[in-house]
Amino acid sequence: RKQEKMEQRQARHENLKRLHRAQVIQRQLEEVEERQRVLEERGVKLEKELRGETDNEFSRNSSSADETQLLQTWFKLVLEKNKLVRYESELMIFAQELELEDCQSQLQQKLRRRMAIHDSKKSPQELAEEQQVLGEMMRMVEERDRLVVLLEEQRLQERAEDKDLESFVLSKGYQLNWM
Amino acid sequence: RKQEKMEQRQARHENLKRLHRAQVIQRQLEEVEERQRVLEERGVKLEKELRGETDNEFSRNSSSADETQLLQTWFKLVLEKNKLVRYESELMIFAQELELEDCQSQLQQKLRRRMAIHDSKKSPQELAEEQQVLGEMMRMVEERDRLVVLLEEQRLQERAEDKDLESFVLSKGYQLNWM
Repeated sequence: RKQEKMEQRQARHENLKRLHRAQVIQRQLEEVEERQRVLEERGVKLEKELRGETDNEFSRNSSSADETQLLQTWFKLVLEKNKLVRYESELMIFAQELELEDCQSQLQQKLRRRMAIHDSKKSPQELAEEQQVLGEMMRMVEERDRLVVLLEEQRLQERAEDKDLESFVLSKGYQLNWM
Repeated sequence: RKQEKMEQRQARHENLKRLHRAQVIQRQLEEVEERQRVLEERGVKLEKELRGETDNEFSRNSSSADETQLLQTWFKLVLEKNKLVRYESELMIFAQELELEDCQSQLQQKLRRRMAIHDSKKSPQELAEEQQVLGEMMRMVEERDRLVVLLEEQRLQERAEDKDLESFVLSKGYQLNWM
């Protein structure tokens, strides 16, 4: 009886923590979206300038030094955009993970309550339901395995992309550096 | 009977996939370690040059422009080191996650085999063992929840650190840019 109450309190506590994490993820997603919007705008403007389509004095008289500068700024923009896209898709994975945790927690509580009763006191239907809950729990575990593999693969891909970009930039004679 | 065989083959397949992931993580960890060693060496050399302790002609006659250049290279080094440290600790979390998946998979198979037998045919001890396996599985789930929270927190911290560094560099009059 006392054990049960403690477990309920624990479960409520875990629920609150998950709610908090969901809010943090949501806020981050909004921040990323806003940041992407700003970058998008700047990108469009920059590309116009690079094509010499803007009317301002500066770009019509632009020297090749200015163009190099523009190109560098554009590179930086692309880099930041890539970073945001990755962060966004990670946040999405975390959100899915959180949902699975929530589901799993509910199934666990259900199962714990049922386990506390001796099998001999259960109807065949109740026993079948128990099996079903367990089956669902195992499916959740597999689902989470899948998400972790996704996260791992994403990290590996990031490393590979970073290296590709770096060698591309180097091949163009630019250098990654602090100006 | 046939079902059981299929599940066994599936489990073997999953085991192989996990083994492969473990190898990838191991290789990445070695790569990170080697990269860190190289950066460490370059860092020590750079710091000596910055303090004017090297004997070469260049640094004894260094102008403030050279020093700015050194400082910029040093910044870049610090950035890359931070990035590696983060990647390393993520790889470590993935390795732990993988171990938990392995454990969980074994417990699941155990449980599945036992579930296939009707409870009335089991001894009290066998039933108690079954409960224990289930309890362990739930512990694994909680352990994995903990790891995901760790990963999430690390990502948030990275974002915050990146922002801090950027404003620090900007406050010093440097600019993050492509040279």
